[in-house]
Amino acid sequence: MTNPALSHAYAVILAGGRGERFWPLSTAARPKQFLTLFGGKTLLSQAVERLAGLMPPERILVITSRDLVPVTRAAAPKLPPQNVIGEPMGRDTAAACALACGLVAHRDPQGGVACILTADQLMTDAATFRQILADSVAIAAARETIVTIGIQPTYPSTGFGYIEAGEALDTGSVTRFERARRFVEKPNAEVAARYVADGKHYWNAGMFIWRAAFMRQAIQQHAPHLLELCDKAATTPPAKLDALLDALYPPLPKISVDFAIMEKMSDIVVARGAFGWDDVGTWAAVGNHILANAAQNVVVGDCEAIDATDNVVISEGRLTALLGVKNVVVVHAGNVTLVCDRDRVQDLKKLVQQVGKRADGAKYV
Amino acid sequence: MTNPALSHAYAVILAGGRGERFWPLSTAARPKQFLTLFGGKTLLSQAVERLAGLMPPERILVITSRDLVPVTRAAAPKLPPQNVIGEPMGRDTAAACALACGLVAHRDPQGGVACILTADQLMTDAATFRQILADSVAIAAARETIVTIGIQPTYPSTGFGYIEAGEALDTGSVTRFERARRFVEKPNAEVAARYVADGKHYWNAGMFIWRAAFMRQAIQQHAPHLLELCDKAATTPPAKLDALLDALYPPLPKISVDFAIMEKMSDIVVARGAFGWDDVGTWAAVGNHILANAAQNVVVGDCEAIDATDNVVISEGRLTALLGVKNVVVVHAGNVTLVCDRDRVQDLKKLVQQVGKRADGAKYV
Repeated sequence: MTNPALSHAYAVILAGGRGERFWPLSTAARPKQFLTLFGGKTLLSQAVERLAGLMPPERILVITSRDLVPVTRAAAPKLPPQNVIGEPMGRDTAAACALACGLVAHRDPQGGVACILTADQLMTDAATFRQILADSVAIAAARETIVTIGIQPTYPSTGFGYIEAGEALDTGSVTRFERARRFVEKPNAEVAARYVADGKHYWNAGMFIWRAAFMRQAIQQHAPHLLELCDKAATTPPAKLDALLDALYPPLPKISVDFAIMEKMSDIVVARGAFGWDDVGTWAAVGNHILANAAQNVVVGDCEAIDATDNVVISEGRLTALLGVKNVVVVHAGNVTLVCDRDRVQDLKKLVQQVGKRADGAKYV
Repeated sequence: MTNPALSHAYAVILAGGRGERFWPLSTAARPKQFLTLFGGKTLLSQAVERLAGLMPPERILVITSRDLVPVTRAAAPKLPPQNVIGEPMGRDTAAACALACGLVAHRDPQGGVACILTADQLMTDAATFRQILADSVAIAAARETIVTIGIQPTYPSTGFGYIEAGEALDTGSVTRFERARRFVEKPNAEVAARYVADGKHYWNAGMFIWRAAFMRQAIQQHAPHLLELCDKAATTPPAKLDALLDALYPPLPKISVDFAIMEKMSDIVVARGAFGWDDVGTWAAVGNHILANAAQNVVVGDCEAIDATDNVVISEGRLTALLGVKNVVVVHAGNVTLVCDRDRVQDLKKLVQQVGKRADGAKYV
């Protein structure tokens, strides 16, 4: 089936993350999207490459932080350099989406469809993802709506926001689309269990597909403070974009697009996504993607172990020798080693902050 | 009180240990006696320096393995180079003692007293040790006996052999001397507790003081296979010593002096030793000698921690960041990191052997 809307589709990959959850391997200068733990390619390269066949490199953009523009261009060498845009400072996803809207409108003012995607998630079934994304583009091109790709939950996560789905849409496409009833914040364990059981809730993975023109309307209505950014980005040539962002970003509030726009919209469509998605949120989650070795440890690099199981060891260019330890994460990077209880990885941010506050903290975080 | 016997006293420090218990910081090429964790000086330097005032450097000898002779000389630069003797291979302490006997006889055939000491133990009260050693030399010079310095046990260790003490000797010296009734092997926990409670047992720390001439008699009687080594070492000039050992060592059995001689002797005297002695046998024991920091971790080097206590971290030139782990030993050295349960340190040898068996094992052990 041909999909003429695809010729107007632009991917805008948001790649503004910092480096706290995979510290010390990821750092401010080399955040998670540059990790090569999974399949030897950076997550960012994978995010770009899985779009192959869906849209040409000219229609793939990456929004990252200014200081990461050079490494981002290096990680996605097929993209035109002006397609990698650096924000002067982080202002969360609402600002990045307004910028994305302007960038797409600049390139295709009439029919441009912006696919807001993420840079640091794994998808094992890229073909299914492409199918869903293509179907979503067709819906977004044809309707006054936002399409979000919701992830069919595989366990009762309390770490994600959820999208409650309503009645199904009759779209004739392979992908199942439903009306989104509401966006819900990260639930507690009990509520999460109910969400997974009822089959009516998806994880909010931060992927949104909308026509730039419709997006502008939504910004005007729900986040008018972002309209200037959106409109000026649509009319500013690439060479002058940095200066524009330098002027407009500082006063912007830090707000997520979920909070600034999505939760206020009455018409959102959710596409059911099941394509081996995982945001690999912590060191503990790495074990879901790398097979444990015979000694029951997840190892990248070099490890010897005696009576040591259920550990995650990232030890490239270094030998890690384990004796009698269980459920520990050991990660070496540069001149830092992390040794962390696997059940405490969610608190890693605190440790990174503590290290960052040292007089020599900049060396490490 | 003058002690004329001291002018005949020779210290022979046995420094033949390998590097398994403090791996990866200690290795075959840099065994425990070269560790500088305690007070910044190697244990070997400390073993030499604590003899200051008791005997001049010319009367201090070190027996080590041949490959360690250069580093040993470097660690004890005040000793004449020919006083550091390298065994071509390890043949346990009986052979080393026979060699020591010959070396002392070579220098002082009539009255030489050999003080067999160790290279890798801590003694916090060196003055008391010197007093006991001087008193022991006087006893050994005057009697046909071996004096051993027994350590007053501070806890029911199952890791040491014990010496059972009998009636006290009236020697007129500050040091308490008792007849040694017998040498006993490492006891189980129950027996060890009894030994500590009865006040009649000492730890066998491998320190023996005897006249070379008496020592030769004991060798002749109980370990005649070592007599040739003893006698030829007594008549061979330093320049030809290596060749002598190369010829005599290979067929020697590996036997400890305790087993080959001490356990067979009827007249041994034990000096009561209480001078902050510790053999620092494992990484766990390091915590007895280095104060824990405010976060309740024993740290040498650089460590940040959150909710992590009772760990031992050796992290020089590297930052170790701990999160939520307890009772773990983390040691970095070269391109190796050990992560070990603090209660499993006694099994470290197995891990070192496993690493040593790798194709690239020599790089690490």
